[in-house]
Amino acid sequence: MRIDAAQTAKRLLEQDRVLVLLHQYPDGDTIGAGCALCAGLQSLGKQAGIACNHTIPERYGYITRLVRPMEFEPEFIVAADVADPKLLGDKLAHFGSRVNLCIDHHGSNKLYAKETYLDPGAAATCEMMAGVLAGLGVTVDAALAAALYTGIATDTGCFKYSNTTAKTHFITAKLMETGMEIEEINRVMFDTKTKNRVLLERMAMDGMEFAFDDRCAIITITRAMREQSNTGDDDLEGITTLPRQIEGVLAGVTIREQTDGRFKASVRTHPPLDAAAICARLGGGGHPNAAGCTLEGTLEEAREALKSAVKEQLDERIFTH
Amino acid sequence: MRIDAAQTAKRLLEQDRVLVLLHQYPDGDTIGAGCALCAGLQSLGKQAGIACNHTIPERYGYITRLVRPMEFEPEFIVAADVADPKLLGDKLAHFGSRVNLCIDHHGSNKLYAKETYLDPGAAATCEMMAGVLAGLGVTVDAALAAALYTGIATDTGCFKYSNTTAKTHFITAKLMETGMEIEEINRVMFDTKTKNRVLLERMAMDGMEFAFDDRCAIITITRAMREQSNTGDDDLEGITTLPRQIEGVLAGVTIREQTDGRFKASVRTHPPLDAAAICARLGGGGHPNAAGCTLEGTLEEAREALKSAVKEQLDERIFTH
Repeated sequence: MRIDAAQTAKRLLEQDRVLVLLHQYPDGDTIGAGCALCAGLQSLGKQAGIACNHTIPERYGYITRLVRPMEFEPEFIVAADVADPKLLGDKLAHFGSRVNLCIDHHGSNKLYAKETYLDPGAAATCEMMAGVLAGLGVTVDAALAAALYTGIATDTGCFKYSNTTAKTHFITAKLMETGMEIEEINRVMFDTKTKNRVLLERMAMDGMEFAFDDRCAIITITRAMREQSNTGDDDLEGITTLPRQIEGVLAGVTIREQTDGRFKASVRTHPPLDAAAICARLGGGGHPNAAGCTLEGTLEEAREALKSAVKEQLDERIFTH
Repeated sequence: MRIDAAQTAKRLLEQDRVLVLLHQYPDGDTIGAGCALCAGLQSLGKQAGIACNHTIPERYGYITRLVRPMEFEPEFIVAADVADPKLLGDKLAHFGSRVNLCIDHHGSNKLYAKETYLDPGAAATCEMMAGVLAGLGVTVDAALAAALYTGIATDTGCFKYSNTTAKTHFITAKLMETGMEIEEINRVMFDTKTKNRVLLERMAMDGMEFAFDDRCAIITITRAMREQSNTGDDDLEGITTLPRQIEGVLAGVTIREQTDGRFKASVRTHPPLDAAAICARLGGGGHPNAAGCTLEGTLEEAREALKSAVKEQLDERIFTH
């Protein structure tokens, strides 16, 4: 059943021994929303804790520190920013069928919980959580505001993407009125790269190929490059944005060699090109500006197949118009 | 004399034939604020125009298009985001001593105009201009909002830097309520690089040197690299942030070979290192986290001198504490 922010707060006020589940490979939004809720419930004298399939990265330490460790038998299960029980991960899979309340902003939410507060218009679950905490009567201080800010900032690319709304800015203004500091958070979240990532980017950029009057740019990340740069999956986040950011490029393609020897391609386009249509030609799919597909054969064959697919779109959408 | 937003609006309502001056090498804030004011005055039936020492870059076309070209003899001179008459540039220098009204957010403003509306707490002049337009009774539609948004976003690194306040977000929320689109603006302002810039970055990163357990990273941009990548001065914007963004780096150094053969160094640090102290050892200066100096001799000598200066700070601030 779908419920709203006020009903969500009412339900939580009735409960104690609340376990808040985060999604696997946790990001700023699930961590910020889950920990802020948990700390808020604890501030009301309730027993509450968080659980996550993966260790929460150290850079979020200023958020996880808000939650005091407590030992208790969970009675009420909440999922924060978890669109699908599958995203709880192996360790928390057994909770999948018994989530009492889900608070989430993903339009794709499976409505798997007994009750769901879902707002697909919210830029982040943290944006919704600000309202829930207000309903709970929790005082949002600078530390709690920093947790919510983190989720909003990371899910919007620091207010850069189109999911950012007037409401997003209003809520952020209220959070900043607590006196919280944003500079260090944003530096860590947006302006810090590992040395390994920098090494991998350098190798990828060294091999960048341009085609069709620089309208298409292609980078390739091979297994050898991953080994040489010693990069984990975390280090790859956002790397697919590199080729498209070049002025004049309408199709930015990133080819990643998989451990099984196949190639995963990410295609990012600007109008009038349609990434989903390009990938559909190769058995993949996605959104108009971001899509993907998987290719077999040699790297050279994969690259040529992608270039042909991009070329067909270019011919259709640009040269013949 | 210092005046406030209401007085500024009152003064402007009394005037006609208003010429709005931008600063040289115009950025998003001077363009956004100047053009929004000019378009606002025109919407009130006044004659108004803008002037700038340099051609306004094409990517700001959606802002300059708001100003209808008009021929008139200027009677009232306004400077927008111009902290010092020197910043008007050669072509507009003759206006320096006869600016009637200056609207600016730089704490360093020389108070050179007859009247100045100065708010050093504002993140951008565009943030102040939103209040001036309200005082003028100008209806801010989506197009005018986009102009003001551009200045706020570009001066705050898209709400990332510490100059961003709760008020910045409140004003942005009001601008977004007009229905303006932010995605394309932010893509052009923040996620677009020229191919030449990418080429130069690649060369700079290829030559990146790490020192002192990776606490210091150094990149060098030679004249040969500039020629090979065909990069203009515009393409270099923000390149000094590259070495410091690497996790664990406390001092990021960028060495640029000048046309006279000397070397200009930019030092960017994180606490506890002090960039100004590092550069002071080499005859330069600046702020605690961003400073610079100029060095003579060979590139190798310049690099060694910078490394020694960084090493001394590291020894003082870290190893001995």
